[in-house]
Amino acid sequence: MIKVTLIHGPNLNLLGMRETDIYGSESFDETNRHIKQRAQQLDIEVRIFQSNHEGEIVDAIQEAFQWADALIINPAALTHYSIAIRDAITAVRLPTIEVHLSNIHAREEFRHHSVIAPVVVGQIMGLGPYGYLLALEAVKQIVEQSRR
Amino acid sequence: MIKVTLIHGPNLNLLGMRETDIYGSESFDETNRHIKQRAQQLDIEVRIFQSNHEGEIVDAIQEAFQWADALIINPAALTHYSIAIRDAITAVRLPTIEVHLSNIHAREEFRHHSVIAPVVVGQIMGLGPYGYLLALEAVKQIVEQSRR
Amino acid sequence: MIKVTLIHGPNLNLLGMRETDIYGSESFDETNRHIKQRAQQLDIEVRIFQSNHEGEIVDAIQEAFQWADALIINPAALTHYSIAIRDAITAVRLPTIEVHLSNIHAREEFRHHSVIAPVVVGQIMGLGPYGYLLALEAVKQIVEQSRR
Amino acid sequence: MIKVTLIHGPNLNLLGMRETDIYGSESFDETNRHIKQRAQQLDIEVRIFQSNHEGEIVDAIQEAFQWADALIINPAALTHYSIAIRDAITAVRLPTIEVHLSNIHAREEFRHHSVIAPVVVGQIMGLGPYGYLLALEAVKQIVEQSRR
Amino acid sequence: MIKVTLIHGPNLNLLGMRETDIYGSESFDETNRHIKQRAQQLDIEVRIFQSNHEGEIVDAIQEAFQWADALIINPAALTHYSIAIRDAITAVRLPTIEVHLSNIHAREEFRHHSVIAPVVVGQIMGLGPYGYLLALEAVKQIVEQSRR
Amino acid sequence: MIKVTLIHGPNLNLLGMRETDIYGSESFDETNRHIKQRAQQLDIEVRIFQSNHEGEIVDAIQEAFQWADALIINPAALTHYSIAIRDAITAVRLPTIEVHLSNIHAREEFRHHSVIAPVVVGQIMGLGPYGYLLALEAVKQIVEQSRR
Amino acid sequence: MIKVTLIHGPNLNLLGMRETDIYGSESFDETNRHIKQRAQQLDIEVRIFQSNHEGEIVDAIQEAFQWADALIINPAALTHYSIAIRDAITAVRLPTIEVHLSNIHAREEFRHHSVIAPVVVGQIMGLGPYGYLLALEAVKQIVEQSRR
Amino acid sequence: MIKVTLIHGPNLNLLGMRETDIYGSESFDETNRHIKQRAQQLDIEVRIFQSNHEGEIVDAIQEAFQWADALIINPAALTHYSIAIRDAITAVRLPTIEVHLSNIHAREEFRHHSVIAPVVVGQIMGLGPYGYLLALEAVKQIVEQSRR
Amino acid sequence: MIKVTLIHGPNLNLLGMRETDIYGSESFDETNRHIKQRAQQLDIEVRIFQSNHEGEIVDAIQEAFQWADALIINPAALTHYSIAIRDAITAVRLPTIEVHLSNIHAREEFRHHSVIAPVVVGQIMGLGPYGYLLALEAVKQIVEQSRR
Amino acid sequence: MIKVTLIHGPNLNLLGMRETDIYGSESFDETNRHIKQRAQQLDIEVRIFQSNHEGEIVDAIQEAFQWADALIINPAALTHYSIAIRDAITAVRLPTIEVHLSNIHAREEFRHHSVIAPVVVGQIMGLGPYGYLLALEAVKQIVEQSRR
Amino acid sequence: MIKVTLIHGPNLNLLGMRETDIYGSESFDETNRHIKQRAQQLDIEVRIFQSNHEGEIVDAIQEAFQWADALIINPAALTHYSIAIRDAITAVRLPTIEVHLSNIHAREEFRHHSVIAPVVVGQIMGLGPYGYLLALEAVKQIVEQSRR
Amino acid sequence: MIKVTLIHGPNLNLLGMRETDIYGSESFDETNRHIKQRAQQLDIEVRIFQSNHEGEIVDAIQEAFQWADALIINPAALTHYSIAIRDAITAVRLPTIEVHLSNIHAREEFRHHSVIAPVVVGQIMGLGPYGYLLALEAVKQIVEQSRR
Repeated sequence: MIKVTLIHGPNLNLLGMRETDIYGSESFDETNRHIKQRAQQLDIEVRIFQSNHEGEIVDAIQEAFQWADALIINPAALTHYSIAIRDAITAVRLPTIEVHLSNIHAREEFRHHSVIAPVVVGQIMGLGPYGYLLALEAVKQIVEQSRR
Repeated sequence: MIKVTLIHGPNLNLLGMRETDIYGSESFDETNRHIKQRAQQLDIEVRIFQSNHEGEIVDAIQEAFQWADALIINPAALTHYSIAIRDAITAVRLPTIEVHLSNIHAREEFRHHSVIAPVVVGQIMGLGPYGYLLALEAVKQIVEQSRR
Repeated sequence: MIKVTLIHGPNLNLLGMRETDIYGSESFDETNRHIKQRAQQLDIEVRIFQSNHEGEIVDAIQEAFQWADALIINPAALTHYSIAIRDAITAVRLPTIEVHLSNIHAREEFRHHSVIAPVVVGQIMGLGPYGYLLALEAVKQIVEQSRR
Repeated sequence: MIKVTLIHGPNLNLLGMRETDIYGSESFDETNRHIKQRAQQLDIEVRIFQSNHEGEIVDAIQEAFQWADALIINPAALTHYSIAIRDAITAVRLPTIEVHLSNIHAREEFRHHSVIAPVVVGQIMGLGPYGYLLALEAVKQIVEQSRR
Repeated sequence: MIKVTLIHGPNLNLLGMRETDIYGSESFDETNRHIKQRAQQLDIEVRIFQSNHEGEIVDAIQEAFQWADALIINPAALTHYSIAIRDAITAVRLPTIEVHLSNIHAREEFRHHSVIAPVVVGQIMGLGPYGYLLALEAVKQIVEQSRR
Repeated sequence: MIKVTLIHGPNLNLLGMRETDIYGSESFDETNRHIKQRAQQLDIEVRIFQSNHEGEIVDAIQEAFQWADALIINPAALTHYSIAIRDAITAVRLPTIEVHLSNIHAREEFRHHSVIAPVVVGQIMGLGPYGYLLALEAVKQIVEQSRR
Repeated sequence: MIKVTLIHGPNLNLLGMRETDIYGSESFDETNRHIKQRAQQLDIEVRIFQSNHEGEIVDAIQEAFQWADALIINPAALTHYSIAIRDAITAVRLPTIEVHLSNIHAREEFRHHSVIAPVVVGQIMGLGPYGYLLALEAVKQIVEQSRR
Repeated sequence: MIKVTLIHGPNLNLLGMRETDIYGSESFDETNRHIKQRAQQLDIEVRIFQSNHEGEIVDAIQEAFQWADALIINPAALTHYSIAIRDAITAVRLPTIEVHLSNIHAREEFRHHSVIAPVVVGQIMGLGPYGYLLALEAVKQIVEQSRR
Repeated sequence: MIKVTLIHGPNLNLLGMRETDIYGSESFDETNRHIKQRAQQLDIEVRIFQSNHEGEIVDAIQEAFQWADALIINPAALTHYSIAIRDAITAVRLPTIEVHLSNIHAREEFRHHSVIAPVVVGQIMGLGPYGYLLALEAVKQIVEQSRR
Repeated sequence: MIKVTLIHGPNLNLLGMRETDIYGSESFDETNRHIKQRAQQLDIEVRIFQSNHEGEIVDAIQEAFQWADALIINPAALTHYSIAIRDAITAVRLPTIEVHLSNIHAREEFRHHSVIAPVVVGQIMGLGPYGYLLALEAVKQIVEQSRR
Repeated sequence: MIKVTLIHGPNLNLLGMRETDIYGSESFDETNRHIKQRAQQLDIEVRIFQSNHEGEIVDAIQEAFQWADALIINPAALTHYSIAIRDAITAVRLPTIEVHLSNIHAREEFRHHSVIAPVVVGQIMGLGPYGYLLALEAVKQIVEQSRR
Repeated sequence: MIKVTLIHGPNLNLLGMRETDIYGSESFDETNRHIKQRAQQLDIEVRIFQSNHEGEIVDAIQEAFQWADALIINPAALTHYSIAIRDAITAVRLPTIEVHLSNIHAREEFRHHSVIAPVVVGQIMGLGPYGYLLALEAVKQIVEQSRR
């Protein structure tokens, strides 16, 4: 059994309600339901957390330190400036996958740069909510490999 | 009747107490009283919110989505880096006026750039607390025009 | 009674004829008629001037020095490079409001920077021709305040 | 019959008198005579205009709006900073060919960037006064194609 | 049945032989065998191509245009400058997943920028050869979704 | 008796638990105990505050305004982007010492720039938790000097 | 009789098949047929070459050295980085015209810069396949002038 | 006898009326009287010209070509962007001295760069109106030396 | 007993004579007397050296290599460009504290960057001559810790 | 006996035929003959390879991996952008000397930067074909030293 | 009687021996003789100093503080990086004229920027050794004006 | 017989004592002995000079002007900012070889740029002290060639 904390950043709670051309029409609740289903199939226990507050996300990462084997994070807008989140990931040293629903390199210039990316294991982007499911598989692979 | 959420960013609660050469000597309470008076004259219902927390401001914008016809926001220091606020404004798609008490282009280099500006309808700056009153007029004009 | 010189920069004489998606469909003459009406209501005497020539605008600002209590200027394309206009505004030391019909921060990168902005009192942008009317109110407020 | 306004920017009236290594030895009058001959051959009515004044060039473009089917412009020094000319071209929406006598990319760094280029149909450069003759052909092709 | 062209860029044929700290110890042949196995499981027909020549990769993308439903590409060093590959991907309009074995954002500065990224659907990076397997799943999802 | 508010930024609560090569092995509690001991020796009353939330730190600085003679702050990750904290320090006008445990100029490029530095009295960095003790001495010196 | 080598860069063989909004609907074969017709009219012998390989284009330029009086080249994607092509043009010292079908200054930022431009005689861009025909005229003019 | 055209750029006609801390209290007329006196002493015939219009200054330089032995120019605000004036100076090939009343390197960043400087013989700055008198001496020296 | 070489860079010998608003009114001799007193209290033997010559400072650092346990250096103007001093510090591998009297981040842009900082243990700045006294304490702490 | 692969990049096959002011008048064949003579004197077996194709050069480096003790490479134009060649050198881990005939720092700005340089042992430039001979000596020294 | 220290920077002792196209053919001794003659005519006592050592120039400026009324300095190569000289000039607060023999804006890019310029009264450049003579006049004017 | 001045820049006198991973373990004296031996073999008279003082190195280059046929210089830290040394090399016009012991392109960013490189004949770097020996050969070749 693998334990994973999955964190959604600011405004992702509006998923499916607005800007469906960029983020798709699947609602936030549906997305989380799909994540839980896939986690169950993969024998992963997943805790899902969403916040619009950088500080709460830092707190959540610190708490994961006590419990989780790995992190999956979509830092949303905070991707581009939250060095506090970056430092939290570095501090807890959990293998982390960064997920983005849209392809951030096909959007505004300032979205091309992630301050989080240099401290994660890998990135999955542009695949919509499906990216979270692949991230679960990736996390399983990484944790199992490290346990060998 | 038009409904407007008006948001004051970090440190604006100290208005009139300090740095009166930049921000004027009118206190935060007086400013809000003037805003309410003018709103009443213009037949606008206004909800005023101040926070030093980026996350609370994002929350407030999301809440406005359910209630307000328009936003007026002075993001203060967050003007220059809060992509989370920018994304919230984009997500709720309410017509928004960005207000600054001082002329940010006459201050330090880093204050010249607003990450919020590209997603608002318009900006009013440099006119002190009076800028909020003009913003109310602007918002009324915009909402009435869109209703026609 | 307050005296105001209002200056329209290059190509604004074509207002309402072209690119109505950006600048609105109100014609240049209608805009000026609205400006004069509002000025009259506010007990402001306004002189309106348009030119495609940077030099003529500098001349006009210098002339305002003899007559006006304040300036309202939409420098249009010259916003981005006319240091001569900037220096004229600095030289005559009249309180100045910079107006833009569109939100210049939502357009091409090179339009984001105004060489004029650091020497004006305030900016109003993105509100179409209605911005001129707010500018008149602002100017009235500033001049009356300084007279007290 | 196609009607074309052809505009020469600042200092081009000195053509053939100075810096013949860069601009060639053909005089300004000869150049214009060749332009008129070729125009006649191509059944184009051409009006030629030269000015050292940015404002006059903007005026000329605005006047072309009433009369011409297309513009040919060599903005000379103004190529690199005249957003007013750029905006005029955008405003009148006439198909425009930008001509440069010399290859501006083989000269000083600051000449490599044209603020005009993004709003024209095409550019012809480095071919001396002969470039105007090709521009006439190009303009004829474009106008005829759009009339089909 | 879905048809996928999978392209390995320069030096990836040396996989597993060198720099195993960055790219892992799995050999190029093993990687390709794993790709084919997973493809078979997912009912995908996959053609694998490796080249050290930019031109051959462009040719391969053009050929995929006739045959494939989607592309998976690890452009390796060419990621950072091959606009020719970018243009080929744009031209053939096949849904494309960009894969990187290592996390390019944790390496040298010049590796942070991908000229390919803006024209692909999504990116998967930092997961070693396992990334190709996830890319196959992603591609299947995308093609099936578009067929509905 | 001098009153000092000492603020620890995000992730500093993990001190001594992780990345001990950078931050040393002394725990967060030990560090605070040492601070209090030294404060007592220097006849300073110190209030210590830690938060992962930018907004709470701004609140804390505003509260210090009512109580403290000086601030000591280690803004941690927020050093590099929190203009809100900068503005709070400016607003309360308390003499402030900025402390960093590590030498931020010997780390990643983005850590070299502090948005806080221009508004503090002084900086002490690279000396580990011992830097807080020196900061207490410095603060005592500054406050006593200003009282003379 | 003038001899001209005309080189098409990567992906231009797809002309007319894809992205017809940018490049027009004329096919690659039609374009080449038109080039040959015009060449014949102008008494020019033309050899046309297309490749997706930078190296083959360098080879072709070197071969032109033995045979051609002039070059016409549309380097397509290679325009922006192939210093090898630039050096080949410099080495063979044949008068060269650079052609672009679209106006590269009206497209993505990275397409605005040509590493080829500083070493050619002139550029013709934005006129679609018609630009090749004008280039033939230009080349004829240049070669005849140099023979006088 | 040496003939010199001396050109004052935009807003210099306001000399002595405003911003006397930067430009000194000597009026524009006094300055010109002093210039004429010194010219007479040095056996120089001087024509003085002031304009707020870039185009008129270009015209004036072109006219100087017929009459003057040398130019003295204070381009004022146009120093920083008027490539048209630069090109006019290059075209007429008269030895030119650039004068600035204030030390432009001790003012705003954008004033540090002169587009005129690379094409003049020399610069004299920071010496107030006295700089014109030294420029006359310099010009005399240069012209006499070239006549030997 | 700890041995420390303390180096004052260019123009610091003028301390207290000029620019007392930035550097304080304490004279250079008083400063050195205070340094010696505090050193004695801390059982540190200190050698103080001042020079306006970069080369002499490099020599002094090389000499410290034979004698000292640590360095304290205020490189003054050389802070911003003397890679020779940086290399000397790296070469002798003595623990080094960089001191600045003023807060260099509150001064001109070019003073914000120290080429020395990345190779020192720590920095103390903005505390006037008192900073040297704290540096002595810091040095004592560092050397004693390393001896344990 | 030491085995060395020596690679000439694009356009170097034209050596001695063109631009002899930059590259000298010695022909490509003479250069290679001199290389072989000196190699023989130094008891080095040398294989010489020239290509205008980046991909072929990458192939050649990979082949050297099986055979050579060291590489000498003059990447010519590819010096400035071929990350593929850089990665190939890194992958094969052979000691490599980068040679340039001309001093690339005395030429155009874009030639100052080598993407190859950070992964080679050393560089020899500006000495014409004689640089290859020194490179052979250097390679001999390095290989012999590593064999001790 | 006015006392002036005139300082020549590195390599100016070679004046007239080399690079006479840039610096003129007058020898260093002749230049100094002319300076002394003109000084005598103007009733100025001048001390001339040349050094290739930055430190000696700083020393000389500090010594001037005791004796001189003004400084004239040609910092030569040190113009572009010697913040130590800049700080010395600021420290001694003597009115200073910066002289350059050549027009530094018509030379290499890195020579366009003077770190000295922002702290001097004025600059004279491009007039060869004659510039020193004008500087003497300027200095006389400034000192006499300040004495009134 | 050829006469060569060989100059070692700052901190090179510590060679072999420290940082042997970068600079090798050969001592400064050994290096110089090897240089002299090789010089003798090549019939070169060599004068070796080391200084930590930029000014002394400039002096030494000026003295070489009277005696030497060529220069070999390792400017060490001064490589990156000493325009005074650059100007000295330009002034004496002796053929110069720049040597670096380490590969400066594989070190910190600021070491990648040499202000000296554009004025030397060639560079040899990354080969340790052996580079000086190759430089002697290069110098011999250059001087002998120029004597023919």
